[in-house]
Amino acid sequence: MKKEIMIETSARHCHLSRADLDTLFGEGYELTNKKDLSQPGQFACEEKVVVSGPKGSLKMSILGPVRKATQVELSFTDARALGVTAPIRESGDIAGSTGVTIEGPKGKIEIAEGAIIAKRHIHFTPEEAAEYGVEDKQIVSVRYEGTGRAIIFGDVVVRVSPKFAAAMHIDTDEANAGAIAGTVYGEIIK
Amino acid sequence: MKKEIMIETSARHCHLSRADLDTLFGEGYELTNKKDLSQPGQFACEEKVVVSGPKGSLKMSILGPVRKATQVELSFTDARALGVTAPIRESGDIAGSTGVTIEGPKGKIEIAEGAIIAKRHIHFTPEEAAEYGVEDKQIVSVRYEGTGRAIIFGDVVVRVSPKFAAAMHIDTDEANAGAIAGTVYGEIIK
Repeated sequence: MKKEIMIETSARHCHLSRADLDTLFGEGYELTNKKDLSQPGQFACEEKVVVSGPKGSLKMSILGPVRKATQVELSFTDARALGVTAPIRESGDIAGSTGVTIEGPKGKIEIAEGAIIAKRHIHFTPEEAAEYGVEDKQIVSVRYEGTGRAIIFGDVVVRVSPKFAAAMHIDTDEANAGAIAGTVYGEIIK
Repeated sequence: MKKEIMIETSARHCHLSRADLDTLFGEGYELTNKKDLSQPGQFACEEKVVVSGPKGSLKMSILGPVRKATQVELSFTDARALGVTAPIRESGDIAGSTGVTIEGPKGKIEIAEGAIIAKRHIHFTPEEAAEYGVEDKQIVSVRYEGTGRAIIFGDVVVRVSPKFAAAMHIDTDEANAGAIAGTVYGEIIK
């Protein structure tokens, strides 16, 4: 059974709906692919936005392509800097999450919900999930020995889709707690 | 054998030498105790300083009383905001660590070394260490189940001194990775 998993760190970022991209960057604007990400079809964009809360503002990248709903992914550190509290959620599960203001070069929007702290997770295709002996929604732990800040992340949710590729995603706080710089490999513990 | 340990989060802060306190706040200045800390004789001060690196500045608290050497304790997030890289070190072990600028109301100093990222650690008196069955310098792990971000911190160094009191100290990145807010209790694993 395979156990080793690539761990990637996601810095704060947002996903935009078609309508919100229009408001922020202009009608019919197309995002510019700066770098392909590990998940097929996903890419970091050249474009940036400024996200604000009652206490502060943070510049962040947009990840493309456009999605059904606008979503802002923060770390606890980021949420504190903005002056908001945001719930730990899986991507896409934004009902009742936190509102923030997003500003682009052509406009500004206020979203009533959409800001979350991403629940740490592992992406797998169904074939990969089988190789690792795990199922969609299963909660696992991941150990990273590292260099001076060994850590075991619990409460890691497995997400399985034919659109995914094997990768664990953590935020910058989680990376820092494990002294993780760049892409590293951890071990899944069930 | 006792296992449960109080976990406290240390936000960025600095300790000042007598000479540096004089420069930053004026000759013979005495720090104002705002709040006693868990470690006997240690206190958070009313006074703040601004610490700067090549990329940015951060306001931070001073912890008293004065120490032999000035020391700035950062998280990885803080170090990034300042634009410096700082080593993970035990408190007091600052040889060859990172230089920063510190500014107070009456003056400014540049330290050639002293900025570190504190190695996570547990303070014990000799009696407490015996109760927990651990020794000075021993490396242990600490498990915190929490609410949605269960975590096991490895590479936790035990520090024993008659001047200490039982408490584990982590930084804000580590607290965020475990969704730790306020003071919580974890379990020592050997």
